[in-house]
Amino acid sequence: MKKSNLNNKIYIYDTTLRDGTQRADISFSVKDKLELIEHFDRIGIDYIEVGFPASNPKEAQLFRQLRSLDVKHSKIIAFGMTRYKDNTVEKDKNLEILINSGTAGVCVVGKSSINHVRKVIETTPDNNLAMISETVNYLKKYFDEVHFDAEHFFDGFKEDPAYAMKTLEVAAGAGSDFIIVCDTNGGALPGEVRYIIEEVTSKIDVPIGAHFHNDSGCADANTIIAVEKGAVMVHGTINGYGERCGNADLCTVIPNLEIKLGKKCLKEGNLKHLTSLSRYVSETANQIAYSYQPFVGRNSFAHKGGMHASGVSKWPSAFEHIKPEKVGNTRKILVSELSGRKSILLKARELGIDLENDPETIAKILSAVQDLEQKGYQFEAADGSFELLVNEMGGKKKEFFTLESFRVLNEKTKDGKMLSEATVKVHIGDNRIIETAEGNGPVNALDGALRNAIKSCYPGLSNIELTDFKVRVLNEKKGTAAVVRVLIESTDGKKTWGTIGVSENIIEASWQALEDSIIYGLMYLEKNKKIN
Amino acid sequence: MKKSNLNNKIYIYDTTLRDGTQRADISFSVKDKLELIEHFDRIGIDYIEVGFPASNPKEAQLFRQLRSLDVKHSKIIAFGMTRYKDNTVEKDKNLEILINSGTAGVCVVGKSSINHVRKVIETTPDNNLAMISETVNYLKKYFDEVHFDAEHFFDGFKEDPAYAMKTLEVAAGAGSDFIIVCDTNGGALPGEVRYIIEEVTSKIDVPIGAHFHNDSGCADANTIIAVEKGAVMVHGTINGYGERCGNADLCTVIPNLEIKLGKKCLKEGNLKHLTSLSRYVSETANQIAYSYQPFVGRNSFAHKGGMHASGVSKWPSAFEHIKPEKVGNTRKILVSELSGRKSILLKARELGIDLENDPETIAKILSAVQDLEQKGYQFEAADGSFELLVNEMGGKKKEFFTLESFRVLNEKTKDGKMLSEATVKVHIGDNRIIETAEGNGPVNALDGALRNAIKSCYPGLSNIELTDFKVRVLNEKKGTAAVVRVLIESTDGKKTWGTIGVSENIIEASWQALEDSIIYGLMYLEKNKKIN
Repeated sequence: MKKSNLNNKIYIYDTTLRDGTQRADISFSVKDKLELIEHFDRIGIDYIEVGFPASNPKEAQLFRQLRSLDVKHSKIIAFGMTRYKDNTVEKDKNLEILINSGTAGVCVVGKSSINHVRKVIETTPDNNLAMISETVNYLKKYFDEVHFDAEHFFDGFKEDPAYAMKTLEVAAGAGSDFIIVCDTNGGALPGEVRYIIEEVTSKIDVPIGAHFHNDSGCADANTIIAVEKGAVMVHGTINGYGERCGNADLCTVIPNLEIKLGKKCLKEGNLKHLTSLSRYVSETANQIAYSYQPFVGRNSFAHKGGMHASGVSKWPSAFEHIKPEKVGNTRKILVSELSGRKSILLKARELGIDLENDPETIAKILSAVQDLEQKGYQFEAADGSFELLVNEMGGKKKEFFTLESFRVLNEKTKDGKMLSEATVKVHIGDNRIIETAEGNGPVNALDGALRNAIKSCYPGLSNIELTDFKVRVLNEKKGTAAVVRVLIESTDGKKTWGTIGVSENIIEASWQALEDSIIYGLMYLEKNKKIN
Repeated sequence: MKKSNLNNKIYIYDTTLRDGTQRADISFSVKDKLELIEHFDRIGIDYIEVGFPASNPKEAQLFRQLRSLDVKHSKIIAFGMTRYKDNTVEKDKNLEILINSGTAGVCVVGKSSINHVRKVIETTPDNNLAMISETVNYLKKYFDEVHFDAEHFFDGFKEDPAYAMKTLEVAAGAGSDFIIVCDTNGGALPGEVRYIIEEVTSKIDVPIGAHFHNDSGCADANTIIAVEKGAVMVHGTINGYGERCGNADLCTVIPNLEIKLGKKCLKEGNLKHLTSLSRYVSETANQIAYSYQPFVGRNSFAHKGGMHASGVSKWPSAFEHIKPEKVGNTRKILVSELSGRKSILLKARELGIDLENDPETIAKILSAVQDLEQKGYQFEAADGSFELLVNEMGGKKKEFFTLESFRVLNEKTKDGKMLSEATVKVHIGDNRIIETAEGNGPVNALDGALRNAIKSCYPGLSNIELTDFKVRVLNEKKGTAAVVRVLIESTDGKKTWGTIGVSENIIEASWQALEDSIIYGLMYLEKNKKIN
């Protein structure tokens, strides 16, 4: 492998399965991990780090199953560390486990900070160098590729540059295929990164990789700077998951490198799958996708201010740094207090409704929106309710059911138990239906009762679930008599929609959002002929 | 004002109230904004941008109330734009509104990209220069400080560096006190930022500010690079709220500048209040605080990996880039008994309770707090509930009343009316009291019923009112079955206290917060002998 890369290739090294799981609330099953590997392989990630082969039984099982996995593009990397300070490599149990892992390559971490050598592993500087050199040299006999992770390299360089560089030199001398400089504490700032990477790439004759954590909020920028200064491999995780504040986010780093710096990262033509990969990983990790994530977030290309919305319609790149479709994302126009006819038109178009030649309906919608916003409605996060409003103003409203009345009872009993029970009375055609349900709280009970009442007519409803429930108290000064805004997000597994309700009564506001959510879902099911 | 800054001062310019509200789901009431300004003033933010004085009635009301607000440190800045292309400055309505805003300073935005001049505002390059120069010159007659925001400066510089620089030169020539270079689309990368800022600070003889958006994921890093290259003002928002992917996050930028680059940003000694400011703002904006936010996130100093955890215990800076307490944050997991105890001690002292010689109570409180926080409680905005907890653990809990049971009925009737009615059964001494009340919503009814039940015993209660009611849904992915956190703020006209409740049932969570609010109020009345 050559140090400089004439064809602009940057190797993408994903550590979602190892560093990603260090995030406080992430844990993947073996099945999750195997599926993630398949996705990473398909999009063209070059290296997938899967962890240490036996840090627990789950990992051991993963490595067994990996042997029979059909991976086409990616190289699977096992992760370990340099030999124990008082062992020979041949007698080191952990190295033996690594060698038996069955992976194509291995990445070993070693210390490059003199303070860590002394205070954390408690050995001599010379023994640490021997640990690095002997480990790399030994593993090279068993693996096609051996990568060396220089832990705490940036802190180490700031303490003692000569020693830190020496650790890289011995790793290079022992035959490392890649040397990765790690900002393990995540505290490095761009200026020092630029200087230090320049030192490393000019002096070490092995391809250099960069591994940044985000404790300074600079992981992505530092990674990009490293590439600008000659690094040819980037470490990171999908969505930036990782210990403490996370790792460099591959969903940010890759499009910056490909679109703006002309580098090649993923398999040709695959960048447009990045948004869906990001969302797939957040689902698998059971994390709420961060709507404001660069490039792939739901609101990364959302325009709210009237001026910006009109600027975008004149000339898309006026307020967009890239075309959203390049990464598989979409532009979003947010309907808000500040917006006018133009935003209504654009928003309707986004929803597949053409109002270009219908100024009357636009005027009706605009006036309804302004009126409702005055009362506290807000359609930015309520696309579903907005679409229902557009239909209603355009005379295309469809009644799936009619509410007669509902009742919700909440009781805290003598023994301290809390009960919620709702009864809903609705009409569907000539049927009058009364249903009751209990719930964890009043809205959950109401949701249950409504579903019970209409599910026999609309069995497709069972595929729709509420995924998010938000409450915002408006004009808070009025205390518990204030106006309340409820936002509900729902999904059928593919499509997601938001709905809204506003009232002085939280139960009524919840009902409005709930009703809109169900009606929108039914409308969508009907369109796709899945309602029954 | 001098261009270079001998004493290392970096001016902090907050635009949470303007750019922050461009985030898809953020909208502040006038009261929210006034309270935010008070908090920003207290921590020592130098400039607070509050928006355009009349883009809607809410803003107009804000500016009226601002005139009587007692702001000690911060300068309030109104935001506007250069004169309309076909107007004179004297006849420009928007400039007239700005001049009448009553603020100390003004920031005007103008175009510095030749493409934007031609395609978006559709005028000649020369007229654009005249718009900038005449506007700044005119506003200088009315304001102590005029800042010029060079919109799309980085894109403009890449299209036509000479023209982009010319826009800054005319703004400087017309008397701008600060010139701010803006990456409006947020697409700039660190390498070009470094080069362009160097050009600007070496050629423009007016203090330079930097305003970055986060579409490339580099806003914070770019802001730091700008300071390294001579900018003396940074624009940003608390928690990075802003349009699309957000603005530079002052909670990340400020500690990096202060701790790592030795700059002075906030009022001396106030950096340790940053974490609580961040959480206060996210509560006010009704946003879930991002747990992985650098410096101030709940998990920013959380250690999960066994190796790291043991490293940290040997030597704290082994896996931490700064001491968490510098920004008012805390280490998580392996929270050393000592640091946990210390913060309990300090917090109790803040409330006027001395626990210095009572390690047993401290241990009890610590364990109770950890237990409750696990369940979703959070005491930052609930001092009242915390004080009640301290009293309870110290054996000083006083029972003013005992709840037997309550019942809340909500009904939407056939005619569409919404009714809420609550019945509360309580004991005070040997009295069993049953009272019912109607309300605008279930919590309002519950509040009314409880007050009816106990007011004859505690007439002082009539001076206490609920001023704020907030609901936050935790683990939102569970939809309407998620856990709900209710925060209530109450006042007797002088003192204000916050209380909290957490439950899967919103009615129960509200009850807990309500009960604490009333008990705290009664305790306080009793202390001041005003209970009867």
